[in-house]
Amino acid sequence: MEVPNRSDVELAARVIAGHVHETPVLVGRTLDTLAGCEVFFKCELLQKSGAFKARGACNAVMCAPYELIANGVATHSSGNHGAALAWAAALREVPAYVVVPDNASTFKRAAIARYGASIIDSGPKLVDREFALAELVRSTGAHIIPPYDDARIIAGQGTIALEMEKQVPRLDALWVPVGGGGLAAGCIAALSGSSIRVLGAEPELASDAYASMRLGTRQPQLPALTQADGLRTSLGVLNFEMFKSCGIEICLVSEEEISSAQRELMSILKVLVEPSAAVPWAALRRHGRKGSKRVGIVLTGGNIDLSPAL
Amino acid sequence: MEVPNRSDVELAARVIAGHVHETPVLVGRTLDTLAGCEVFFKCELLQKSGAFKARGACNAVMCAPYELIANGVATHSSGNHGAALAWAAALREVPAYVVVPDNASTFKRAAIARYGASIIDSGPKLVDREFALAELVRSTGAHIIPPYDDARIIAGQGTIALEMEKQVPRLDALWVPVGGGGLAAGCIAALSGSSIRVLGAEPELASDAYASMRLGTRQPQLPALTQADGLRTSLGVLNFEMFKSCGIEICLVSEEEISSAQRELMSILKVLVEPSAAVPWAALRRHGRKGSKRVGIVLTGGNIDLSPAL
Repeated sequence: MEVPNRSDVELAARVIAGHVHETPVLVGRTLDTLAGCEVFFKCELLQKSGAFKARGACNAVMCAPYELIANGVATHSSGNHGAALAWAAALREVPAYVVVPDNASTFKRAAIARYGASIIDSGPKLVDREFALAELVRSTGAHIIPPYDDARIIAGQGTIALEMEKQVPRLDALWVPVGGGGLAAGCIAALSGSSIRVLGAEPELASDAYASMRLGTRQPQLPALTQADGLRTSLGVLNFEMFKSCGIEICLVSEEEISSAQRELMSILKVLVEPSAAVPWAALRRHGRKGSKRVGIVLTGGNIDLSPAL
Repeated sequence: MEVPNRSDVELAARVIAGHVHETPVLVGRTLDTLAGCEVFFKCELLQKSGAFKARGACNAVMCAPYELIANGVATHSSGNHGAALAWAAALREVPAYVVVPDNASTFKRAAIARYGASIIDSGPKLVDREFALAELVRSTGAHIIPPYDDARIIAGQGTIALEMEKQVPRLDALWVPVGGGGLAAGCIAALSGSSIRVLGAEPELASDAYASMRLGTRQPQLPALTQADGLRTSLGVLNFEMFKSCGIEICLVSEEEISSAQRELMSILKVLVEPSAAVPWAALRRHGRKGSKRVGIVLTGGNIDLSPAL
């Protein structure tokens, strides 16, 4: 698969324009003081489907020839990509099939179902999910749109960086959480040749990207127990290639730091921040501003189950 | 005191421009479906100090002659007006004094203190608070800026309606929560002569404005046990005059409806909504769209104590 570059991201921006929101950027003086620099929060939690995943899914679905997706699109996901793909499929009025492990929360299931996807149950292991997906594709003829290891998805997610460049002049750095690496890779593609550095943040309890970068070969993700459920996936192959080419720095944070960052952001910015989305702020708080003066952070999603909390 | 009109609100908008945010308007298709009309949520929870109260406080502080406020500004408040006044006083570098009843939450105190106000403790009763405020004014020479029964405050809050007119074309109605009536009165002033109707929403457990409108005389607020702590205050004198002049309709909601509205808004819009701010959505859900097709709702504030919840 070819590595996407800045023009692919620019093309994706044109493809998804009008379908996704240009999300607002929030600031908070108290947070600037805590960070020791100016921080700009890109609110992808206000994106369609409640997460940045709508961008990649929209790009992949919108740029596919109709024949390819006439029988529908499919993926396996227990989270935001499933909901985003269901939302994007509806734009072209094709069916969406999402394989969901039977240990996924009813909250996540409901979000996927809300956008009209057919949900197919599978066992919780990756092999179960892949088998169920292959089975599904065989029986429906649906086209697979993977969550992150895909040039169309990467280019779509990278459109966030283009918007940030426009919304926040003279940015030095852009922090993103790293799970499969789709968002980070997209931002790397979008900002190649610019002076904005992409920095990755990862939970200690799901640190395969950190280990992969240190060792120079892609490391498997051990069963990941982090509360940041969007970051439990393994780093993608294409994503890792792009990580290596720019030598992205990945910074780790503890579970306690994630919880505390989540509370800080919600109470000051007044928006819902899911644990995965709090990881970059936790990293900036722990590892410092790294010489940057104007720092962007992508708040990737706000899909939190509120039913027991209130 | 003179009743403010649309030009007073327009003047207030010029006075506070650059100090307060022009807050974004959010929409959610799921919420439209639930309401049976298009609904536009004005996110004053993203306003400075986390609530719309920054507008009125800013207007009152900025348009005061310096001599009047040189010794500081003062109010009694256990909530958002106290924090907003502290924030506004800092703009003109004058001291702020806030009388806080000793049963106020540590969360609310912290918010007021965060903006640099001096906090003066008082007993919980209105008479205790007023006595402490009078005492404070005698000893400091500070100028009192009341929370709602004040033309400058009313004009400042009304700027929300001007922004809504501009941000959402062809609006039919604008729902606001009613406590002291500052926001509702400001919107009445701003929209007099327009085709946008102002609708008020009030908790059943703090229904003095509802009773006052029914009986034609201002009714005292019984001790209000509603969770919507911003709406426990009594309707102001000037505010009631303005309510009567336009015959505003006030719709009541139960505590259960408030909780459920708050959950609905937070889980779909992904922003923090304090109980008071959820009251208009609860009213729209219970009483229907009342013939309107495009309805605005002011989400007045997002100051929720998250420390035990997460």
